[in-house]
Amino acid sequence: MQRGFETSEYQTRLAKAQSMMREHDISALLLTTEPDVRYFTGFLTRFWESPSRPWFLIVPQDGDPIAVIPTIGAALMGKTWITDIRTWSAPDLVDDGVSLLAETLREVVGRGRVGLPMGHESHLRMPLADYDRVRQLCPDITFAKDQDILRALRMVKSEAEIAKIIAACDVAARAFNRVPEIAREGVALDQVFRDFQRLCLEEGADWVPYLAGGAGPFGYDDVISPARAEPLKQGDVLMLDTGLVVDGYFCDFDRNFSVGTPKPQISKAYDTLLEAVEAGKAAARPGNLASDVFAAMDEIVTGGQGTGDAGRLGHGLGMQLTEWPSFIAGDTTPLQEGMVITLEPGVTVSDGFILVHEDNFVIRNNGIEQLSPIAPKDMVVI
Amino acid sequence: MQRGFETSEYQTRLAKAQSMMREHDISALLLTTEPDVRYFTGFLTRFWESPSRPWFLIVPQDGDPIAVIPTIGAALMGKTWITDIRTWSAPDLVDDGVSLLAETLREVVGRGRVGLPMGHESHLRMPLADYDRVRQLCPDITFAKDQDILRALRMVKSEAEIAKIIAACDVAARAFNRVPEIAREGVALDQVFRDFQRLCLEEGADWVPYLAGGAGPFGYDDVISPARAEPLKQGDVLMLDTGLVVDGYFCDFDRNFSVGTPKPQISKAYDTLLEAVEAGKAAARPGNLASDVFAAMDEIVTGGQGTGDAGRLGHGLGMQLTEWPSFIAGDTTPLQEGMVITLEPGVTVSDGFILVHEDNFVIRNNGIEQLSPIAPKDMVVI
Repeated sequence: MQRGFETSEYQTRLAKAQSMMREHDISALLLTTEPDVRYFTGFLTRFWESPSRPWFLIVPQDGDPIAVIPTIGAALMGKTWITDIRTWSAPDLVDDGVSLLAETLREVVGRGRVGLPMGHESHLRMPLADYDRVRQLCPDITFAKDQDILRALRMVKSEAEIAKIIAACDVAARAFNRVPEIAREGVALDQVFRDFQRLCLEEGADWVPYLAGGAGPFGYDDVISPARAEPLKQGDVLMLDTGLVVDGYFCDFDRNFSVGTPKPQISKAYDTLLEAVEAGKAAARPGNLASDVFAAMDEIVTGGQGTGDAGRLGHGLGMQLTEWPSFIAGDTTPLQEGMVITLEPGVTVSDGFILVHEDNFVIRNNGIEQLSPIAPKDMVVI
Repeated sequence: MQRGFETSEYQTRLAKAQSMMREHDISALLLTTEPDVRYFTGFLTRFWESPSRPWFLIVPQDGDPIAVIPTIGAALMGKTWITDIRTWSAPDLVDDGVSLLAETLREVVGRGRVGLPMGHESHLRMPLADYDRVRQLCPDITFAKDQDILRALRMVKSEAEIAKIIAACDVAARAFNRVPEIAREGVALDQVFRDFQRLCLEEGADWVPYLAGGAGPFGYDDVISPARAEPLKQGDVLMLDTGLVVDGYFCDFDRNFSVGTPKPQISKAYDTLLEAVEAGKAAARPGNLASDVFAAMDEIVTGGQGTGDAGRLGHGLGMQLTEWPSFIAGDTTPLQEGMVITLEPGVTVSDGFILVHEDNFVIRNNGIEQLSPIAPKDMVVI
């Protein structure tokens, strides 16, 4: 897999965005988050981990994007296809890019409308007080919703993007194959977590932003806690769920392992999860809605009673661990070719303890394509 | 090091916050980001990597904090000291916690004032459109700045927090000691990055959210790019800068290595960096200002001409890789005992190529205490 994208990839994204901007009478988009800025520029860095500096990208209705960024990012942004790069020396406690951003917006937008992502799964990554100041400095500009342009664009992946998600899935697949090297009765769960991240790196992950999981005799009581220093016991089921990154794109799938022979109720739950994935696969076709996928899977895992605590049975993924849509009853997003998704059913094994399975797919016109490996018919025994 | 904190740690933080809230006539704080929520609760999870769900914490002027969170987090929040936990099944595309949050705010605040972090290094981690809806649903409540209460509190660390940062520094120190195992002439930089993250995990990191660095014959042209697949060459200087996490707290320091004997101008630059750190240490005492530390270091690295592209010569750290204050000319924050900081001077070696050194410290009344190991007097040769 080649690193980065051809410039044409970004130009295609830009042309689609500008077409939608014309349709919605939006003069420019103002973007502030890592994935939104990267989507139009290719600006890839872990430096966003530092909350100290805001970063801005202006996508005008005509012409190329303009980066308004801290000087420390100029060299890296200069290696992308972006040529209009305006910088200030950040941090600046008096004027942290505010007047430079406002000036650029006034130049680009005139008296028009600026669209910002304001809907579900979005946030504004800049100090709220500075956002208010930018608006005051642009009295002739209307700041409004982006009409979900970013959501609509990013939700459907190009083949070049899908290739990166496949590369990430392949790395995780190799790491999961090696779990018997690191996990067995007596090994503490936090040690398993550390070692699994090491395996992901050895197999080619650039970095491992996410690892969750759990272990217990009847499943796990929650799937978001950090691992405790408790040893795996005979009869436990162990789940590892990773979101690792290759060239800026995530995979997000899990695997369950049985420490010794699985209990009958665990095997039964696992069978139900695989059955639910099959039902989800059948429903995940262009023209159906996200809610149809939910309904098909929920029929298997709860008999149609609605989900448990996780709140959904899968979601989109790509530049972020989780993206739109959500497989819930209330998400009526029409499915399209090129959407990359996870199917993630969960079942309750005993009171408060669950089993979860997750795989990754891309929706195709001629049938769903699995990106993570086909899960073993029976849980791997370690 | 014991995992987590005693409940008294949170009660102390709460009492300080409530005292400041009374002073500023703030009826409650509304918090939405990972570190701010964790600061008062101990809610530690990597699940924030998913942008799909908002999380809210209300800190009232009297009484304990109230968590308003997605159901998927209830089990983990239930293991903290927080008892008032209100949940909704998220994601909900129609009402993603908005009415539950508004109802709780009206109950807690009445007709009072809600403070939110809005200043430097903050952001609001919820959809902007939902924030507007919450405000509309609370017409009698004033939403205003938190008067930098979070900044003031989080900037000064307790001994229990300092112990965790020391634990993170110790892990990184052991990983840096093992760099000669993984880096030498001919090894590609991206492989070094992968292997260094592996070493961090082997030495006890819970996870490695940040690794930056660079390599080149006269330093590196920027310090935020992902590593390329280019082999290290004889005469290169290699820099690795990690922010790894132990029990939710970061270290953030770097080390430079020379591939073969360092060039004289590299050795000279390295000496200048160590000299600048000494100047910063001498200036970093209670009563001085952040700008005094900058001035002392800048005198060494530029002769008092002002910084280069990085924009600053160090910063605070703790629950985040970078925190307040900034060592810049314009930050007049008074230094206090218990502030944990990095001193991070950079020098230009040749046009566009720099060398950077970084160490971690805690400010004490009786002199600065180094948390990262004392840097070698000469660069380690690999």
